[in-house]
Amino acid sequence: MISTSDVERAAARIAGRVRRTPVFAADEGVWFKLEQLQHTGSFKARGAFNRILAAGDPPSAGVVAASGGNAGLAVAYAAREFGLPARVYVPVTAPAVKVAKLRALGAAVELVGEKYADAYDAAVKHAANSGALFCHAYDQPEICAGQGTIGLELLEQADDLDTILVAVGGGGLLAGIAAAVEGRARVVGVEPRTAPTLNAALAAGEPVPVEVSGVAADSLGATRLGDIAFAVATRTDAGSVLVDDSAIVEARAALWDRYRLALEPGGATAFAALLSGAYRPAPGERVAVLLCGANTDPATLTSPSGAPPAARTPR
Amino acid sequence: MISTSDVERAAARIAGRVRRTPVFAADEGVWFKLEQLQHTGSFKARGAFNRILAAGDPPSAGVVAASGGNAGLAVAYAAREFGLPARVYVPVTAPAVKVAKLRALGAAVELVGEKYADAYDAAVKHAANSGALFCHAYDQPEICAGQGTIGLELLEQADDLDTILVAVGGGGLLAGIAAAVEGRARVVGVEPRTAPTLNAALAAGEPVPVEVSGVAADSLGATRLGDIAFAVATRTDAGSVLVDDSAIVEARAALWDRYRLALEPGGATAFAALLSGAYRPAPGERVAVLLCGANTDPATLTSPSGAPPAARTPR
Repeated sequence: MISTSDVERAAARIAGRVRRTPVFAADEGVWFKLEQLQHTGSFKARGAFNRILAAGDPPSAGVVAASGGNAGLAVAYAAREFGLPARVYVPVTAPAVKVAKLRALGAAVELVGEKYADAYDAAVKHAANSGALFCHAYDQPEICAGQGTIGLELLEQADDLDTILVAVGGGGLLAGIAAAVEGRARVVGVEPRTAPTLNAALAAGEPVPVEVSGVAADSLGATRLGDIAFAVATRTDAGSVLVDDSAIVEARAALWDRYRLALEPGGATAFAALLSGAYRPAPGERVAVLLCGANTDPATLTSPSGAPPAARTPR
Repeated sequence: MISTSDVERAAARIAGRVRRTPVFAADEGVWFKLEQLQHTGSFKARGAFNRILAAGDPPSAGVVAASGGNAGLAVAYAAREFGLPARVYVPVTAPAVKVAKLRALGAAVELVGEKYADAYDAAVKHAANSGALFCHAYDQPEICAGQGTIGLELLEQADDLDTILVAVGGGGLLAGIAAAVEGRARVVGVEPRTAPTLNAALAAGEPVPVEVSGVAADSLGATRLGDIAFAVATRTDAGSVLVDDSAIVEARAALWDRYRLALEPGGATAFAALLSGAYRPAPGERVAVLLCGANTDPATLTSPSGAPPAARTPR
């Protein structure tokens, strides 16, 4: 469980290490937080820096993570900034381009097992054996509190927000932001219908395993909501909205076509809720949409036909 | 010639019609103004709205422009917002994709002559014969003043700026911003060495024709600096810096690689001056870089080899 004060401490720790990403008044009553402009192209750098800095004296064995995606990149980047060795475990099925990016950041990449769970177990074992600091992709208080610093910035950057739409995978981002803005704004988690960890957890009354697939699975494909996210989501009465994969594809195309913003599918998922009408603001409701990742091949931003997406307005 | 008060009047006119684009504290002492997020993907919408609104009762014959690029898109967009007919003249050599974009915005596109000058002459003639409002791409006071509203926003969004780096083609953007911030910040015009209208004008003591070519010629390829730009640049002691085409290519790649910002070559040209060292800020100097256009194929943002650009810091 984390609270607003945990997030405030995280903000003080990571100040100067992460970018204060801008907020864009995109439409009447709608603000975009451009967190895809963060170091390494996603929000994950915030949690990684907070986790390492909160540990006090960094272990000489360095840091370790299990992730072939945004969390791994962020941990590798943060470790490099501190001159610490980073080891990142990924399944042997990880795309070569992701492995190359991790290595370009100076990380030692270990290819273990066919599935993410194999890489995860190996990372935990390495941490236990070596004394390296394990950085979870979402379910550690320092990770969640670091991501939550986005919420504190949002409260300063957009006045009188009612609602913040946040994409959910394992829920570290949702947990942090919901704790950050508790009592001041409401957070609504947005998930692909094909990866509904929050929605399933709220329905079951506890985090439960879900099947994951779909266009955003590379970044939102955790198979179970984190315990911290579940605790914070229920305490703060976070909302839950599901969107179709087609809505995510359309949202990503619209962000490029209308605003010249490049996002990966997971990074565009929160906007998909607004664009598709899966989330409908009340009259006068002030909504922030967290755009959270752009680790994508930009060649995929435009449709092969070159046709612009249908001109629907978000409200 | 235009003054700060012309720009202030423009800002009042176009308020609510254009986006207040965000400013991003990208690095210590360096701010990016993200004007590529403007309607139609470039700053040109500001001038187009101001030109039309300043005309008072819009002519029933609508508006006319000569441009196969960003200026044409902006005029077509603004006209559509007012329900006015727009006619855009382009040379027969204009790429079909640009013609299609203009038509998608509802403009009547007239293909005339082999060169831009032929399209320009036809547009001026049409305006004279029909009473349509001619919107110049850069050398009209209302166009310059509209673009200058960026400068007023920048003064509010970044404290105590010393310098604003601005790409120059015909110089409408430079003229407007230099007038907007006159006495409060200095503007430095950045041009490709292959399209040096400002540099050549300052050397000659008046606007002179130049040969244009290179990677940014589609947006910065005016062949002569506008008279308004020359007058304002000399009055405000604007600086002039030239960059190589290779520096523009590198700046564009770095903006994507480090910040996940997508720009067209002309839109990345101001940053090229900082990244390449063609412009070197003094210690403590506070510099804004105007990123001004993103009408580009995003597939071209990453190099074919996938290799990241060399990691040079801008300062």
